[in-house]
Amino acid sequence: MSANGHGSRSWSVGLDIGGTKVLGVLLDAGATVRHRLRVPTRPGVQGVLDTAEQVVGELCAAAGVTPQELTGVGAGVPGLVDPATGRLSYAVNLGIHERAVDLAPMLSARLGGTPVVLENDLNAAAVGAARALGLPGDLALLALGTGVAAGLLLGGQLRRGRWGAAGEIGHLPYDRTGPRCPCGQQGCLELYASGAALEAAWPSRNGIPAAADLFAAAAAGDRRAIGIRDGFADAVAAAVRTLVLTCDVEHVVLGGGVAEVGTPLRDAVVTAARRQAAGSPFLRSLGIPDRVQLAPADVPVGPVGAALCVRPAVPGRAQPVGS
Amino acid sequence: MSANGHGSRSWSVGLDIGGTKVLGVLLDAGATVRHRLRVPTRPGVQGVLDTAEQVVGELCAAAGVTPQELTGVGAGVPGLVDPATGRLSYAVNLGIHERAVDLAPMLSARLGGTPVVLENDLNAAAVGAARALGLPGDLALLALGTGVAAGLLLGGQLRRGRWGAAGEIGHLPYDRTGPRCPCGQQGCLELYASGAALEAAWPSRNGIPAAADLFAAAAAGDRRAIGIRDGFADAVAAAVRTLVLTCDVEHVVLGGGVAEVGTPLRDAVVTAARRQAAGSPFLRSLGIPDRVQLAPADVPVGPVGAALCVRPAVPGRAQPVGS
Repeated sequence: MSANGHGSRSWSVGLDIGGTKVLGVLLDAGATVRHRLRVPTRPGVQGVLDTAEQVVGELCAAAGVTPQELTGVGAGVPGLVDPATGRLSYAVNLGIHERAVDLAPMLSARLGGTPVVLENDLNAAAVGAARALGLPGDLALLALGTGVAAGLLLGGQLRRGRWGAAGEIGHLPYDRTGPRCPCGQQGCLELYASGAALEAAWPSRNGIPAAADLFAAAAAGDRRAIGIRDGFADAVAAAVRTLVLTCDVEHVVLGGGVAEVGTPLRDAVVTAARRQAAGSPFLRSLGIPDRVQLAPADVPVGPVGAALCVRPAVPGRAQPVGS
Repeated sequence: MSANGHGSRSWSVGLDIGGTKVLGVLLDAGATVRHRLRVPTRPGVQGVLDTAEQVVGELCAAAGVTPQELTGVGAGVPGLVDPATGRLSYAVNLGIHERAVDLAPMLSARLGGTPVVLENDLNAAAVGAARALGLPGDLALLALGTGVAAGLLLGGQLRRGRWGAAGEIGHLPYDRTGPRCPCGQQGCLELYASGAALEAAWPSRNGIPAAADLFAAAAAGDRRAIGIRDGFADAVAAAVRTLVLTCDVEHVVLGGGVAEVGTPLRDAVVTAARRQAAGSPFLRSLGIPDRVQLAPADVPVGPVGAALCVRPAVPGRAQPVGS
């Protein structure tokens, strides 16, 4: 019997498997984070499995439990997920070039049969944000990172969409006369509202993250920084408006790397949303600025959401896959 | 006992209450349209109630039943609906200027206590389209009429959104340098993809509907008509793309007045969607052209969907409200 007794049976591990790092958390029965870990991702199918197995193992060891004692492991991944089979497709960011990989069963086998749930990383983050912010479950987690996309929790249910493309708003046009996007279209929102776009306009200096540096410079009155910040906030506010005028989500939670800027980011986006609605009673009636929230700074919503996806209490969650 | 016996107990009436006309159908237990009726809408709260009561009465009389024998009456209305109470807000198109009206209970009282369900007209049409086309229930009904908006049936459930604004894509920007929209914004999609926009560019001649005339002229080689048709189809394809990249609906059903054009409309929109995806493997992978369908020409999806909303088999339907 493990150090913490039978209670660990309802513990779970959540992983957020990204292109550069894997974030892992161990949640107890009350969904409190007991341990957390961050390790660099090894690319490719075997690399991802090795990294995931290592993180689960170290988190369990820290708590004195074995992986087999867990309720299960939830893993958020950047790619297309078939929740029924735990199959992952289009995960080039993980160095996985196979068309489709049965990642959940493979990881479950590595973990001695522990049930594994695979979920799109933004969907997992949406579940984590709803929990961390105490929101009733009608929200979009708008991730502002390398790209721009949203995880959707509609009426408490994850909305993956027919082909897992729900929330891919980064590839809606923002400026049809804009530059070419790597996706092949022109002027995609992602070219204006992503962390990568921000960093291209205001490169990182002295090791400070570009977004933090930009917002500090703008706050200090740097006119070029103010212009870049406001243009960026306009594009993010357009993303929020798109989510409201399509899904009418109650909350839009700003997440991803840029959200580490915190309140100044929210303030800039709210100001931009107000500016956009200034001439439109229709837009004003939708109360878009009031819907904008920040992902919590102290809770890693990605891995926490992934860990929650193992539990039956998450409606629309994927079925756990055993080996 | 009525002419058709106890079977009429599971019959229902559906109404599509628009600004100019009320369309009504009487559905039998097998959801076949037994009778249909179209009468001009009298404006204002009393006018709408008078018209609705008249249509229900005449449909029932034609079938030899009384309104009290029906399972209920479903009414689709252009406005914000609270499904729990049957309250209607923002229904200026019906000449209703009151901030909110308890329309379902009022109509139920007029009908001797027959249960009444109120639903947004596009949501009702989405339910009707899913039924008429035999689709499993993941679709957007994209209405191309005076305005542009969609009714959303996601995973078999109506998606109304937090404030009933889900599917209001007509007021997303299409051309940010475009003219002012009555909503107060600039270059809204509705200014390019609506039936009203089409008619402004190609006014109706000789009593032929503008859209039919435009598509016929384009097919006959009129270069100006071809330009207007293709610009219109581009905007409609952008609306379809928006629905796919946000909700990833399996089907987008073209409805509203313009859809009476039929196959030439679908062809033009599919061609535009292919053109937009030509340079983008990402967009091509989503198979957007294959998702585009036409609302059936022979089934009035609005009132049929409203009639189906009375039945418990429609997930997410509003609760019937008795007087």
